[in-house]
Amino acid sequence: MNTDVWLFIGMGLGVMSFALAVLVYQWVKKQDAGTEKAQKIAKAIKDGAWAYLRRLYTALTGVAIVMGIILAVVFSLQGEGFGLARGLETAGAYIIGAFCSAIAGYLGMSVAVRANVRTATAAKTSLNKAFDVAYRSGSVLGLAMVGIAVFGMCLIYYLTGDPEVVLGFSFGASSLALLAKAGGGIYTKTADIAADLVGKVEAGIPEDDPRNPAVIADNVGDNVGDVAGMGADIFDSYVASAVAAMLIGFTGFLSFPKEQQLFYTVLPLILAIVGIVSSVIGIQFVRVGKNGKPGTALNLGTVFSCVIYAVLATILFLVMKWNIGALIATVSGLVVGVIVGFTTDYFTDDAFGPVRKTADIAKSGSALTILSGLSYGLISIAPSMVGIVVATLVSYFSAEAFGLPGIYGVGIAAVGMLSLTGVVVANDAYGPIVDNAKGIAEMSGMGEEVVERADTLDSAGNTAKAITKGFAISAAALTVLALFAAYKQQIEQYMPSGEKLSLDLMNPLVLSGILLGAMIPPIFSALLMLAVNKNAFKMIEEIRRQFREIPGILKGTVDPDYNTCVGLASEGALKALILPAALAIVLPLLVGFVLGPAALGGFLGGSIFVGVVFALFMSNAGGLWDNAKKYVEAGNCGGPGSDAHKAAVVGDTVGDPFKDTAGPSINTLITVMTLVSSLFAPVIAVFHLFG
Amino acid sequence: MNTDVWLFIGMGLGVMSFALAVLVYQWVKKQDAGTEKAQKIAKAIKDGAWAYLRRLYTALTGVAIVMGIILAVVFSLQGEGFGLARGLETAGAYIIGAFCSAIAGYLGMSVAVRANVRTATAAKTSLNKAFDVAYRSGSVLGLAMVGIAVFGMCLIYYLTGDPEVVLGFSFGASSLALLAKAGGGIYTKTADIAADLVGKVEAGIPEDDPRNPAVIADNVGDNVGDVAGMGADIFDSYVASAVAAMLIGFTGFLSFPKEQQLFYTVLPLILAIVGIVSSVIGIQFVRVGKNGKPGTALNLGTVFSCVIYAVLATILFLVMKWNIGALIATVSGLVVGVIVGFTTDYFTDDAFGPVRKTADIAKSGSALTILSGLSYGLISIAPSMVGIVVATLVSYFSAEAFGLPGIYGVGIAAVGMLSLTGVVVANDAYGPIVDNAKGIAEMSGMGEEVVERADTLDSAGNTAKAITKGFAISAAALTVLALFAAYKQQIEQYMPSGEKLSLDLMNPLVLSGILLGAMIPPIFSALLMLAVNKNAFKMIEEIRRQFREIPGILKGTVDPDYNTCVGLASEGALKALILPAALAIVLPLLVGFVLGPAALGGFLGGSIFVGVVFALFMSNAGGLWDNAKKYVEAGNCGGPGSDAHKAAVVGDTVGDPFKDTAGPSINTLITVMTLVSSLFAPVIAVFHLFG
Repeated sequence: MNTDVWLFIGMGLGVMSFALAVLVYQWVKKQDAGTEKAQKIAKAIKDGAWAYLRRLYTALTGVAIVMGIILAVVFSLQGEGFGLARGLETAGAYIIGAFCSAIAGYLGMSVAVRANVRTATAAKTSLNKAFDVAYRSGSVLGLAMVGIAVFGMCLIYYLTGDPEVVLGFSFGASSLALLAKAGGGIYTKTADIAADLVGKVEAGIPEDDPRNPAVIADNVGDNVGDVAGMGADIFDSYVASAVAAMLIGFTGFLSFPKEQQLFYTVLPLILAIVGIVSSVIGIQFVRVGKNGKPGTALNLGTVFSCVIYAVLATILFLVMKWNIGALIATVSGLVVGVIVGFTTDYFTDDAFGPVRKTADIAKSGSALTILSGLSYGLISIAPSMVGIVVATLVSYFSAEAFGLPGIYGVGIAAVGMLSLTGVVVANDAYGPIVDNAKGIAEMSGMGEEVVERADTLDSAGNTAKAITKGFAISAAALTVLALFAAYKQQIEQYMPSGEKLSLDLMNPLVLSGILLGAMIPPIFSALLMLAVNKNAFKMIEEIRRQFREIPGILKGTVDPDYNTCVGLASEGALKALILPAALAIVLPLLVGFVLGPAALGGFLGGSIFVGVVFALFMSNAGGLWDNAKKYVEAGNCGGPGSDAHKAAVVGDTVGDPFKDTAGPSINTLITVMTLVSSLFAPVIAVFHLFG
Repeated sequence: MNTDVWLFIGMGLGVMSFALAVLVYQWVKKQDAGTEKAQKIAKAIKDGAWAYLRRLYTALTGVAIVMGIILAVVFSLQGEGFGLARGLETAGAYIIGAFCSAIAGYLGMSVAVRANVRTATAAKTSLNKAFDVAYRSGSVLGLAMVGIAVFGMCLIYYLTGDPEVVLGFSFGASSLALLAKAGGGIYTKTADIAADLVGKVEAGIPEDDPRNPAVIADNVGDNVGDVAGMGADIFDSYVASAVAAMLIGFTGFLSFPKEQQLFYTVLPLILAIVGIVSSVIGIQFVRVGKNGKPGTALNLGTVFSCVIYAVLATILFLVMKWNIGALIATVSGLVVGVIVGFTTDYFTDDAFGPVRKTADIAKSGSALTILSGLSYGLISIAPSMVGIVVATLVSYFSAEAFGLPGIYGVGIAAVGMLSLTGVVVANDAYGPIVDNAKGIAEMSGMGEEVVERADTLDSAGNTAKAITKGFAISAAALTVLALFAAYKQQIEQYMPSGEKLSLDLMNPLVLSGILLGAMIPPIFSALLMLAVNKNAFKMIEEIRRQFREIPGILKGTVDPDYNTCVGLASEGALKALILPAALAIVLPLLVGFVLGPAALGGFLGGSIFVGVVFALFMSNAGGLWDNAKKYVEAGNCGGPGSDAHKAAVVGDTVGDPFKDTAGPSINTLITVMTLVSSLFAPVIAVFHLFG
């Protein structure tokens, strides 16, 4: 079967998936938008979100144009297989990648800021109804994202026949993701921490109280962080995993017959197609029965899609008589991903020891609460790390056993893990929608029953989020490992003498590269957390100023000035982005051009190993503290208002930038660094000072 | 010149250094031990310390005997160059290593628990006098340690002519260090946190108040953690660095003439001899003038010894016409070590931004204080990491430029960094002595002036400690890198087919090993911190119980029951040790025997890279919070009793197990893991399941 056929199928299904997203979006729009008061609040959130997105996308357009020009120039000037055409293709693919990622994020945001008030209003009718609105809205982002990604990759590969150009597409998506994720993460936690510290702790007013000047910024933050940011983040992993496997397929099969080489280059896209189909089917089955639990519905959806994917892939491989090694690899990735997700749950779910012990020790004050959460967070990396190792070994050796290059198996395992992206994103986008819905229900005074229903939906969102996060980080880790292998192949392909790139740990350049790379994720996350700290400090001053200068606010007679807080959060987040983002792109190039390709290989390795540890640690510790606080708020260990509660709030506040700013941004950081290195590999292979 | 001559010089100087230590000890004993009340308190501390040490050393004797038997059996059974003699030698060296480390720790403790009250009493006369007593007492541990270490290594090598047997000595020292350091770390912070939380925060009594039931345990903790534990820790790095370089010298120079091979095997010991001489001279020059500052005196001592070492080594190399590459390597290690130490100071000294900004943000509560400290702690790893890279590259390529194996240069650089061990340990042991002296001065009511002087001495100790800690961790990192290289050489020497061990990052077994190894330092530190948490929780309950049931305590009419707290801390620390210590020894062997030598190589690499990051991060963050608290207590940002102060105390409490339990134990952990792997390399090379 001609591989072009699969590319057409991919483009077709991509368009279909996107069209389905638009249809669901239309359905969401038609739902009841509720009372005037609720709509007014929703509008304030929407306006705040657009104000930030406008600034972000303006900045991104600038970055995309500059990077596009640099890429066009660099790849045009070079000889041997390069030239003007290659330069323009790479630059074009880069800009399209950035644009596609932006489109998906934009659509996700559009639906999220409409879905929140509609979910709250639907909660007046019933829990099922509200869940339906929220989940379908979330699925818009999931469907749109996989649709655009598969369409874009198939199209670019069809037009150029060169996976290196698709790499440009992936780099475009990733550099946007880095800015969107880190910026959104800073924004959301700035607002969240400031609103909580002054509102809850100092003024003693409840969460989501309309008297709090930062309340709108807080709700905006949920959207820009968890919808736009997280969407761009997963989009980037998804594309990167496919591209890494395509590149390995292209250069790793050079010694195979041409037809086979082409097939293995396209196979990752075929698997993505299977993933789209499974996600679309899986999403349809997420329903809450009359007494059903929303959390169970979300998890069942994930497991169900998984099974569909495994079955479809197996049938396809058997019918087409494709290599079984690749099938084992992709399924092993998927299975390990799901197991890891559920195992990580042990550390963040209040049904188990870690959360309960942390809540319990909160009675002895905030210091021990912090120590407890940090410790369990550090231990919680184990299931994922072991899972990544198992997936690596199984996929490598099963591919090798069936005559394929082992590293191709690892690439395919990453594609397998990420094949459920549609479902994972839908689950994740559901979270901020119900969180906002709860806020709107409270602020517009919809009554206790509605707020309670919204709260039930919200808790389910938090649990689902923790599971999908463990899943996403493991998948990203496997993806960067595959990308890392692709980097090595790219360098070797372009080395002037045709020599092999040795990445032996005993090579002092590799070792130095590893140690330098190991520094980057900790420093990067520290810069993001310091940005949150700095911005939150400013916003705290602003909230205090409003309470002090306008006494009517706390009495509820005057509306606070929401816009100043929204503006502070937007501006602070975008300013704080510059340094970390520059680090991610400039440092690998610097190491590569100065210390050479072997040191850069070590650098990528070091940042990946340490990056995965920190990403898992920070995300899980943050989730644990969040749930420990909720566990205390549910009346345990002294309950709300107790000293244990105060200590648990401190834990949660520390955990906020851990889990929503620094932790998830590390994924994107290591992806961007590996992508930029692979993309510039042809240049670095030829020009470097040492090594 | 025959290498045996150097071994005799080494043994001679080792004995001299130890004898000097004993002489200084006698001098300390002759100092005025002060009033009866002060002596009574000092006796309580001494008794508590001995009670703990007795239990610790009993446990250690058991461990040493069991490990000795295992080593004897394993190395006796194997063929080819092995046999009963080798088994008995290895086991004997192991037990002697553990015993030597214990002796040094014992001597250090003996003098420390006598020096505290004498320092306090001397402070009645003058600051100079008190400094003199405290510093000389500290130097006892420094002098004794380098003396015993050099004597032991020279003797064992002289008797067996086999650096692999010296490896057994090093492993003995390290396994004791692991238990002493981790156990002492848990002990000291359990008591410290519990005493502070109930005493300062709940009961509102000052630090070191005799009414606090945990006050003696707290002071005991300073000794068992910072004298016995830290002493064993540096002893272990010191010996390991020399052994690593000896091993590389032995197997790395196999293709050189026999005479040269022997010379390069002994060169690390010669450099250690130069180090002893420089330390002994340097220590004599540490004096405080009439208006002198103790902190400056300590730092000048370090720098001065450094210069002496560089000058002596240069003269020796020029006179003896030895290879200049090795000279550059050892001096580069030394210089980088000192620079790193002073640069790290930026992050923990209250004269600079990080501490001040953290103190400032403490006004916004404990959560932001924690985030700020964590962030700066993460950034603070940069100078050391860059320093390690510079030392690695310079020493590797300078050795290579002069015709030596590059990796030998790295080994020699580590020896250079650690050549100042005598001075570093003296500075470090000074810390707990003056800390205790301050406590005794307060508890026995020696008056404000004396307490103030003791406080000045204490602050100097904290600054010196921060600098030497950065130095020690970097040195340990370079040491394990050299040990890591020694591991590879050992494996290759014993591989049946004579093949090379490839540690390429693209080898899936190496990669899996790295990911598994990367988990260990985080999990290990988490286990130690959880142990502190658990024990502190128990002790808090006990202190509260005493305050509640015996009302006379707080009124000052009844003495609290100090012994229960001392017992709780001892028992808890020793129990908590079992799991982490077993991990350190069993896991590398498990990986090696199951996944093979390549995976074990990766495992060691992963644990080293991540371990260095965590060790630096935790030590520096802890130091930063400590000084931020002190900065607030000095009247800044609201001063004592303010909300900022409360937040700063929370930061300090979190930082305590960071800097005194988990952070410094990671050093020992990675050293032990690398040593156990190198020692068992001959067996693993032959027997393994996969790979």
